[in-house]
Amino acid sequence: MQELKIIKSTTLKDKPEQVGDFGTIFTDHMFVLDYEEGKGWHNPVIEPYQPMLVDPASAILHYGQGIFEGMKAYKTNDGLVQLFRPRDNFLRLNRSAERLCIPQIDVDFVLECLNKLIELESEWIPTKEGTSLYIRPYIVATESFLGVRPSHKYKLFIILSPVGAYYPEGLKPVKILVEDKFVRAVAGGLGEAKTMANYAASLLAAQEAKSKGFSQVLWLDGVNLKYVEEVGTMNIFFKINGEIITPALNGSILPGITRDSVIKVLKSWGLTVNERKISIDEVVEAFDNELLEEAFGTGTAAVISPVGILQYKDKKMELKDFESDSIAHKLYDFITKLQYGKENDTFDWIKSLS
Amino acid sequence: MQELKIIKSTTLKDKPEQVGDFGTIFTDHMFVLDYEEGKGWHNPVIEPYQPMLVDPASAILHYGQGIFEGMKAYKTNDGLVQLFRPRDNFLRLNRSAERLCIPQIDVDFVLECLNKLIELESEWIPTKEGTSLYIRPYIVATESFLGVRPSHKYKLFIILSPVGAYYPEGLKPVKILVEDKFVRAVAGGLGEAKTMANYAASLLAAQEAKSKGFSQVLWLDGVNLKYVEEVGTMNIFFKINGEIITPALNGSILPGITRDSVIKVLKSWGLTVNERKISIDEVVEAFDNELLEEAFGTGTAAVISPVGILQYKDKKMELKDFESDSIAHKLYDFITKLQYGKENDTFDWIKSLS
Repeated sequence: MQELKIIKSTTLKDKPEQVGDFGTIFTDHMFVLDYEEGKGWHNPVIEPYQPMLVDPASAILHYGQGIFEGMKAYKTNDGLVQLFRPRDNFLRLNRSAERLCIPQIDVDFVLECLNKLIELESEWIPTKEGTSLYIRPYIVATESFLGVRPSHKYKLFIILSPVGAYYPEGLKPVKILVEDKFVRAVAGGLGEAKTMANYAASLLAAQEAKSKGFSQVLWLDGVNLKYVEEVGTMNIFFKINGEIITPALNGSILPGITRDSVIKVLKSWGLTVNERKISIDEVVEAFDNELLEEAFGTGTAAVISPVGILQYKDKKMELKDFESDSIAHKLYDFITKLQYGKENDTFDWIKSLS
Repeated sequence: MQELKIIKSTTLKDKPEQVGDFGTIFTDHMFVLDYEEGKGWHNPVIEPYQPMLVDPASAILHYGQGIFEGMKAYKTNDGLVQLFRPRDNFLRLNRSAERLCIPQIDVDFVLECLNKLIELESEWIPTKEGTSLYIRPYIVATESFLGVRPSHKYKLFIILSPVGAYYPEGLKPVKILVEDKFVRAVAGGLGEAKTMANYAASLLAAQEAKSKGFSQVLWLDGVNLKYVEEVGTMNIFFKINGEIITPALNGSILPGITRDSVIKVLKSWGLTVNERKISIDEVVEAFDNELLEEAFGTGTAAVISPVGILQYKDKKMELKDFESDSIAHKLYDFITKLQYGKENDTFDWIKSLS
């Protein structure tokens, strides 16, 4: 690989006093890496954040051959910059790449470039409680060609966006609608890859749920519309009669990094998590028998989202008021403390920028 | 809607003597239409074909909210320009739009703009036997925003590309592999929309099939991997013991316009087409009993593609040599004659440019 080139912006933007809506403000620089068949990945560069020229026949405008990741950089009270399991995000990017016929990246090299980018932009990392710098690495097909086959050209970008606290006033339970008509993914499809198609597939269901007052949908499996898969942009956990359950990774569920962290943290606390099939009927039955103790989502954006209301068809399940001794609350506390350097990291998950 | 603005290119490209690979050469101009929430579709313009500026946070680079169509303009021996069922393509574009939360277009207005674009570019329509001008209308989400929800901004493009004859030496049977691992789509998903996700989902299966010497895959349903759905970029028909069968539109199959034309032409010939479920086991059994008389794909690119070899797991089914009195051959002949103005159009499918 060539050496990373850094082209600094001659004018810097004003950093916002208050971080507004998620994903609308971007920092001064971005990282770009090119791929061309025969040449491999080449031309790594940190350059001013700017629009790019895209040909109207570019593959990415037609066939959805694109993948992405989402992660965050946190600033500790001591002013240290910390990343949470960044290597795992790039390893997953490579797994998504395989499914989408996109060439593999050199994870160590790209991680190095990311570190340099964040170093350069470290003043963009907000410092208020719960805020962070969202990191969006993505790869898109860029060959100008209308035939349907894997592109011969790609671009990898990393862009950065300061984001506010997901829960500025403390954890807030969400209202979730169990989706019984639309399907996100099915085994043999793209469900376990972090690729555009899954998000495109979710839009209409999410829009209909929002119009009914719900914040996200809970997806069921595409074969029987029976087994729980995941929530909108999160994985899902239940606590039923003392048993902690999350749907097993079956090929159509996104293997969330927060999901994996939650399982490992719970195990370190001596608790068992059963990764298994769980039907929506089992959830309803548990609720009816007053055994559904908790339900919560896990994801990069919110870390933990306790479920306050879960509605399946006409059945509205109100979960007990979210209490601070719940597993969801303890997990949220523990993982966010790790991320902000307030908890000793025995998992080797935190990567501090030198 | 504002009036269509036409900005002519000051320099025109050389038109190729020979049309090369599909979808690599584009004409001098394109049509562009903008959408913004609150303003609706606006700013219709025919302008020089050129790259556009895309923000790195643009929705289309992340969440696959994009749809497209494919159709062709043909030149008759008399120099007339003909389109084949263009209105049906734009009606389907609107159905795809609905599924992808993209705002509806005014079909009549966009058709008018398409006609003006083709008029302007009519010298680009190749005239050799079997050649045509491929028309690619598409809509992409263009808002710069990383949140997952329908975009508030879109662009519709129509780009044009001269294409060679699909069968320069006459109809040629194709080798098809029945896909028994990967899935293209499932009911409740995006399968019946012409959207990027379905093409992204097809890449790996097609690549593996090609490496084994097949030209496309035959998809089975995503629930049971049992019922026939469609072929790569075509719909599929079988003739078994005299019965003509094509999979019924079940929500996960693309409602092909050539598929629909074939059904209507066959009916006009007094033949029955049964749109029904057909399992791959039924196809294999018919083959074993020497009752599988024909199999062919239908689509805009090739019109009709007779299947020469169909392989399911270890079972290699060689279909009888393609003969000129087969249904596939008759259909190909009839529909291409309609398209090139050599057959009287009793269906009202041909739209001649004034």
